[in-house]
Amino acid sequence: MAKSKFEYVRNFETDDACLPNCWVVVRVDGRSFHRFAEHHGFRKPNDDRALHLMNKCAQTVMQELKDIAIAYGQSDEYSFVFRKQSNWFKRRSSKFMTHVVSQFASSYVFYWKDYFEDQPLLYPPGFDGRVVLYPSDQNLKDYLSWRQADCHINNLYNTVFWSLVQKSGLTPVQAQKRLQGTLAGDKNEILFSEFNINYNNEPLIYRKGTVLVWQKVNQVIRKKIKIPQETDEKEVEVTRMKNIPASLHCDIIGQQFWDQYPEILTDDS
Amino acid sequence: MAKSKFEYVRNFETDDACLPNCWVVVRVDGRSFHRFAEHHGFRKPNDDRALHLMNKCAQTVMQELKDIAIAYGQSDEYSFVFRKQSNWFKRRSSKFMTHVVSQFASSYVFYWKDYFEDQPLLYPPGFDGRVVLYPSDQNLKDYLSWRQADCHINNLYNTVFWSLVQKSGLTPVQAQKRLQGTLAGDKNEILFSEFNINYNNEPLIYRKGTVLVWQKVNQVIRKKIKIPQETDEKEVEVTRMKNIPASLHCDIIGQQFWDQYPEILTDDS
Amino acid sequence: MAKSKFEYVRNFETDDACLPNCWVVVRVDGRSFHRFAEHHGFRKPNDDRALHLMNKCAQTVMQELKDIAIAYGQSDEYSFVFRKQSNWFKRRSSKFMTHVVSQFASSYVFYWKDYFEDQPLLYPPGFDGRVVLYPSDQNLKDYLSWRQADCHINNLYNTVFWSLVQKSGLTPVQAQKRLQGTLAGDKNEILFSEFNINYNNEPLIYRKGTVLVWQKVNQVIRKKIKIPQETDEKEVEVTRMKNIPASLHCDIIGQQFWDQYPEILTDDS
Amino acid sequence: MAKSKFEYVRNFETDDACLPNCWVVVRVDGRSFHRFAEHHGFRKPNDDRALHLMNKCAQTVMQELKDIAIAYGQSDEYSFVFRKQSNWFKRRSSKFMTHVVSQFASSYVFYWKDYFEDQPLLYPPGFDGRVVLYPSDQNLKDYLSWRQADCHINNLYNTVFWSLVQKSGLTPVQAQKRLQGTLAGDKNEILFSEFNINYNNEPLIYRKGTVLVWQKVNQVIRKKIKIPQETDEKEVEVTRMKNIPASLHCDIIGQQFWDQYPEILTDDS
Repeated sequence: MAKSKFEYVRNFETDDACLPNCWVVVRVDGRSFHRFAEHHGFRKPNDDRALHLMNKCAQTVMQELKDIAIAYGQSDEYSFVFRKQSNWFKRRSSKFMTHVVSQFASSYVFYWKDYFEDQPLLYPPGFDGRVVLYPSDQNLKDYLSWRQADCHINNLYNTVFWSLVQKSGLTPVQAQKRLQGTLAGDKNEILFSEFNINYNNEPLIYRKGTVLVWQKVNQVIRKKIKIPQETDEKEVEVTRMKNIPASLHCDIIGQQFWDQYPEILTDDS
Repeated sequence: MAKSKFEYVRNFETDDACLPNCWVVVRVDGRSFHRFAEHHGFRKPNDDRALHLMNKCAQTVMQELKDIAIAYGQSDEYSFVFRKQSNWFKRRSSKFMTHVVSQFASSYVFYWKDYFEDQPLLYPPGFDGRVVLYPSDQNLKDYLSWRQADCHINNLYNTVFWSLVQKSGLTPVQAQKRLQGTLAGDKNEILFSEFNINYNNEPLIYRKGTVLVWQKVNQVIRKKIKIPQETDEKEVEVTRMKNIPASLHCDIIGQQFWDQYPEILTDDS
Repeated sequence: MAKSKFEYVRNFETDDACLPNCWVVVRVDGRSFHRFAEHHGFRKPNDDRALHLMNKCAQTVMQELKDIAIAYGQSDEYSFVFRKQSNWFKRRSSKFMTHVVSQFASSYVFYWKDYFEDQPLLYPPGFDGRVVLYPSDQNLKDYLSWRQADCHINNLYNTVFWSLVQKSGLTPVQAQKRLQGTLAGDKNEILFSEFNINYNNEPLIYRKGTVLVWQKVNQVIRKKIKIPQETDEKEVEVTRMKNIPASLHCDIIGQQFWDQYPEILTDDS
Repeated sequence: MAKSKFEYVRNFETDDACLPNCWVVVRVDGRSFHRFAEHHGFRKPNDDRALHLMNKCAQTVMQELKDIAIAYGQSDEYSFVFRKQSNWFKRRSSKFMTHVVSQFASSYVFYWKDYFEDQPLLYPPGFDGRVVLYPSDQNLKDYLSWRQADCHINNLYNTVFWSLVQKSGLTPVQAQKRLQGTLAGDKNEILFSEFNINYNNEPLIYRKGTVLVWQKVNQVIRKKIKIPQETDEKEVEVTRMKNIPASLHCDIIGQQFWDQYPEILTDDS
């Protein structure tokens, strides 16, 4: 077989290794999720089912892939941070982004029914991904702060917008006009005076998004063991330490979070 | 909100636009599919259900994404060829590969049950992807020939290997040893003399893989229309021309295929 | 010596190989040459000494470096085209551009005195360079056409501008205003009616720039040889075929040039 | 003029901006300088004229270009470190390397006669260049340490090698054999016992190379000024503070250097 004749085409692949000693961030975004949300009856401004499904997918990504130090998600996007020293697949950019995005996408469909019990999935959704490098810890913290600030801005807007539409009967165009040019304070005021909503009491998952960090937990599993001098196996409970991606809904812009979880930035084991 | 303070991190994104006037090939590969196949009882050497599911996913990719001229798949891999003149997402490499791989992965889970009726999907599978550019038509044809030659080589090997294991009772290690150093002719001879198999009569989908090309078909749909001066709507049959990704299992190494489908290389509408 | 401890820094170098089977164009531009020209009394609108020095530098680049198929220069810029199949320094982009630009720069100073006999070089000039890839022959021809069209546009403008300044006594600002909004025909008309200049009779090197192509020439060299049975060496003339970068000042936008020199595009020996 | 028709070729240029917040190192190497050194009678193992000419070129580069924080040179190579925050030419990699290498090359020829008074320059030399990014200060210090360690290793070897050739009359092949497998201690011992040379007393510029750092100096210049109520101009001496690239021949591997010049790493004004 004329294998050698064609094999030269392999040389057209380019080396896309990420610069060493930088944080590698892969951000996943839902493709046309505005439309997808409408087709699947997502509740507005936030759908708990959708948010928890996103978190489940992100946890799966963290468990299946190597070297992810922290992840942060909000709305239809999720960012995964690979350790500075990661050498997974020789740090090839295409490997980082396609493994993340494909695992996320397949998990989304796989776990859908666990979160949307009464709403069948109508078609397989798409996602896109990108890789961004951050050389310093401060750059990385600023990246995550940027996403969480974005979460806050959008959620405040959406909370007022959908209150105006759902409770005051405004059309979307009217609601949009009403909010044009308003500052954060104005929006808080509308929520409070017109809808008796104190924005600061809204659920943290809506206001802060979700942070996934590794946590050691004790896991009790039942295991069959063979006791010497006994014929039957015996089932016993065994406690094992396990690393799991735990979800938090806290502020990550201030220094407190990083003081509480110093290993995220330092642990390059 | 201190949005502006963090927004500088956007400047760390790099421009990854593909060189214009080149064919953009995205190849998707199953991640750890050897293990995945075992867990899900794939038949050896070829599992029709798995091959047809791969084809269904690839067709979904072609229909959901823009500017794919041709696709070729075999085993657990699929290559998608975007037109030279495509300007989809400004030709950004990350967009090409993540859209393809995420749509492929979500489709794989979504359509699984249509092909594996008695075999539940145990966990969400992963895929990886890469982008390779080919400047000339000959380079592109050689790339596709390389993949089809690879299909042939692997399938011939696997057909003999699994005959030895399944029909002659050899262990995998024994079968591997038996085949060490054999040429294509030797393998054909083993198949014929020991198992009465004429390799050339094996199904084309195994030997050639699957080519997806756009074909115009007449589609008959039922449509409700309102007839003037009648009160009720009436259902009528309407025939419409539609472009669909049709699957072929033919040779694409020789010139004949390209003569038969000249629009693949030339149509840059 | 703690060599190994530091050597890891080599891994931070990235692979910048150019895509195979593409034309590799390196364009060199003089840095702040407007100022440089003033400091060194360049004649306006064209200084023959400067143009011929540029050509000499470009010829040196073609002779010292490998795989250059054609070069084109005008004003203070020069483009060098490496063959599609060149594998010089593994096609590393940085090697292409730095070798070209450094050889050009050192030659500029080295040969300066041969062209500017009465004008000493006051300081070492700077240049910048870039690499651009062109996948098809048409793309390459269009690139070169783009530069030659640019040469024409600038030279026509400059010829009128400096006539207005030098012969009609306009200030540069007045000349610029006079030319604002004029088309090529208007400029030709000004030249003809006010200065009795037929632009088409202007020297080709100004209007078309300079093309460097490889030409075989017979070179007569004197060589000392030893005649058997004679004691002294004898000097003889020997004619040898040699490949030299010959300069042309012709149109390269039309097809005629490419028909006359087909080997530029085809010869990938 | 059909300018627009060709101008599309500009889109083939790729964006090669360096990742922000990283040190940008450009290293220049002489091309075929072994041969160049022979042709120009460089003294072995070190030629002071050549080393000082290299330093002069590097100083010119630092003065002509922007944002260089430190430079380090040895033998026929020089490394230039651009500040992390430099936004010179939008951090385009090709701009960094071609400006450095062309300025270095033109300076080499321009200043040649000041250092090689009795040795004419026979032909214009070539150089190559590359860009490497270093995300952290430690990475940068390790890079510079790597080059200085390389200087030490090569210079020790060359010092012994040329002693054996020049003073003991060994052929180069014999000298090479003699040194095969020897450690640093062995080489020091040969120097001491056979040539009465204490390597540590060799000139620092040979053993450590040259570091260029910015230093403020008082510069006295003569200036003509006009005194009120006097008719003639009067020449006076004026003292001005000026930033110049000063050369050092010290250790940069240890911490002491960085403690002494903290502004190299911190000053991003």
